Amino acid sequence: MAGLLRHLLQNIRLVSSFGKSHTKGAYSQKRHLASTTTTLYDWRAADEYVEISHGDAVMQFDYVWLRDTCRSAASYNPKTSQRILDTASIDLNIRPAQTKVTDGHLSLTWPDGHVTSYSLSWLAEHSYQVKTRTVLQNRVLWNRDTYDAAQVPSARWEEFMSSEAELRSFVQNFLLYGIAFVDGVPASVEATEAVSERVSIIRETLYGRMWSFTSDLSRGDTAYTTQALDRHTDTTYLHEPCGVQVFHCLQHDGTGGRTLLVDGFHAAHKVLEESPESFQVLCRVPIRHENIEAEGGHRNHLVGTGPVLSAHPWNRELYMIRYNNYDRAPIDTAPPEEVRRWYAAHRLLTARLRDPGNELWVKLTPGRVVFIDNWRVLHGRDSFTGLRRVCGCYLPRDDLLSTARALGLLA
Amino acid sequence: MAGLLRHLLQNIRLVSSFGKSHTKGAYSQKRHLASTTTTLYDWRAADEYVEISHGDAVMQFDYVWLRDTCRSAASYNPKTSQRILDTASIDLNIRPAQTKVTDGHLSLTWPDGHVTSYSLSWLAEHSYQVKTRTVLQNRVLWNRDTYDAAQVPSARWEEFMSSEAELRSFVQNFLLYGIAFVDGVPASVEATEAVSERVSIIRETLYGRMWSFTSDLSRGDTAYTTQALDRHTDTTYLHEPCGVQVFHCLQHDGTGGRTLLVDGFHAAHKVLEESPESFQVLCRVPIRHENIEAEGGHRNHLVGTGPVLSAHPWNRELYMIRYNNYDRAPIDTAPPEEVRRWYAAHRLLTARLRDPGNELWVKLTPGRVVFIDNWRVLHGRDSFTGLRRVCGCYLPRDDLLSTARALGLLA
Repeated sequence: MAGLLRHLLQNIRLVSSFGKSHTKGAYSQKRHLASTTTTLYDWRAADEYVEISHGDAVMQFDYVWLRDTCRSAASYNPKTSQRILDTASIDLNIRPAQTKVTDGHLSLTWPDGHVTSYSLSWLAEHSYQVKTRTVLQNRVLWNRDTYDAAQVPSARWEEFMSSEAELRSFVQNFLLYGIAFVDGVPASVEATEAVSERVSIIRETLYGRMWSFTSDLSRGDTAYTTQALDRHTDTTYLHEPCGVQVFHCLQHDGTGGRTLLVDGFHAAHKVLEESPESFQVLCRVPIRHENIEAEGGHRNHLVGTGPVLSAHPWNRELYMIRYNNYDRAPIDTAPPEEVRRWYAAHRLLTARLRDPGNELWVKLTPGRVVFIDNWRVLHGRDSFTGLRRVCGCYLPRDDLLSTARALGLLA
Repeated sequence: MAGLLRHLLQNIRLVSSFGKSHTKGAYSQKRHLASTTTTLYDWRAADEYVEISHGDAVMQFDYVWLRDTCRSAASYNPKTSQRILDTASIDLNIRPAQTKVTDGHLSLTWPDGHVTSYSLSWLAEHSYQVKTRTVLQNRVLWNRDTYDAAQVPSARWEEFMSSEAELRSFVQNFLLYGIAFVDGVPASVEATEAVSERVSIIRETLYGRMWSFTSDLSRGDTAYTTQALDRHTDTTYLHEPCGVQVFHCLQHDGTGGRTLLVDGFHAAHKVLEESPESFQVLCRVPIRHENIEAEGGHRNHLVGTGPVLSAHPWNRELYMIRYNNYDRAPIDTAPPEEVRRWYAAHRLLTARLRDPGNELWVKLTPGRVVFIDNWRVLHGRDSFTGLRRVCGCYLPRDDLLSTARALGLLA
């Protein structure tokens, strides 16, 4: 039990990053030493692969992989970043006629004379052994106190729309906390659209591209009422829930209607600490969510299926929480014995999500736009009185991450 | 081996549908008989669940599930199709004070007096035991000969835009074959947009909402050349590849440029028959795909990760193939021993995808719009000469399926 917990904790790294170690391991006599400008590598050619050791990482590269991944001009087009080589043309038993390392580069001469060359550092970056220990996205898990203490600055509209540095700082905060704010935005749908498009393309859904709603129940969804909404993530009824949600409260003449934000990964991490089995059940059991609308001229029936928690299989890094008790369909995709475990696990996660210390309450006001990572941060709201008009849109997470990569914030 | 193959074949049903059997099983003395208008059910109340038998299906429903899934007005809003009940408020050890079946309905009286009632047929529809044997989407796997022999009709533009029956027939063909055509469409981007929006909303990507391209290499992608393109699925570099692709060749003054279509599920099914292990490797190993563009004013770096084949975990039904040798990134998310297996499995799948008998070649001409299920059917093209202008867009698969449900074509 303790061993499993330790193993899981080691394998779920949400805030740490992989520090490259330069400790040298022990190698067999057949191994060779090589060095790049700063670091030491050992290597040896085996029957089916080349093995490279670097620090405490021992990395194997199969010959088919080495041929397939070749970055020579005949194999890979750097202009389109696309493979030219027909992978199916490679002999699955291919062996190089010659293998050598010089100047920190592995060079393989294939039977047909083609030469493939890799820098050892590039290989190390692209090895499974390194990727299993690499966090894709560093995050700061937060509750109300730690978020408040961090005093994360909001972006300013004018700078945000013109300065790459301001955009970069905003995206960095979004990546770290799963929420980020822009202040001073004109209180219009058009300005909200512009601020959204500064970050990413917009994802159209059944609610349109840009949407604007009030409590008129114009759509068959509780969001279109004055009722309180418990914490949830949106569009869980899609195969891929929308990655990012943008909200801008354009007007509110009345009381209540505060927005609740909860870091779902912080709660999931608590579950992992308290009950690794529950965490695993939430990762394992596929849950259906549904959106059914057959009134007011709308005919929609959307079905999304996925676990409550999704983690990358190779490094166990959490990347998505899918949590919406309103839209969750009858569970019919898990065997009965799993259903019992799932309800207990869901109960534990819900308790952590409802811990008052984890609740961040903010009153959205005209001019203040919030971006929410809908794969991580749950949102909800107070009930309210009066006229409250909110606009916003969804963004695809892929495209926001593309922006982050263009800004040098992600690998 | 033969047992595993049989098991897998039984569990991957691509063309069959679940036929409800009315054979009565043997039951213990504690069981009770009930009947709806046409069929017989047995049932018994156990400590933790109610067990219902119907034909050869033995279905268990946990009490927490039964309370949580309650469709009473206090628990579920039929207007919004959303759960009202706070699942976390249910005692995990809840037991009904009274359980009975009358008139084909299971009725449970809970300790607080609340009564939950289900029809037995509704319960049977929502049981795991039934879902594991139910195909979500019936499909006709095809090669060139069987597709040609089926003589699938194209929709006609005028009828398609106005008649629900014509739209329904088109969507039915799309669901069954993964491709469907509309003829007589005006050769414009606007008409292509209209024909697309008749089916679904449009999914904007880095290439825009509606796109129109020719061989000007205006984007860093081989699609923007005159070169032949081997069979592939699109946007494998997104977490969720686009569900549907729409193509309309608006103009071609030259030779070549035929479009190739291949049923990926037919090829995958061949792999399953020949090598269940290879099929499993392709389902299991996460593969990264990348789109990197840093020229011509475009800055994109998109990364999508998923297996080549995706199957629903509960019924093993295949729902997605992700195959693009151009955009496949260096494999660094699977251990070395898996990498070797994966290359062999990929080779086998590629051979089946390249079987000339599986190739459907069509010359797209102005007026003819093709919809391609990008989660199932691979496309490619001949090299060509002259000016060739193609427009189109992507559609989210979820929304096309929603249309299919609205038309009564899917559960």
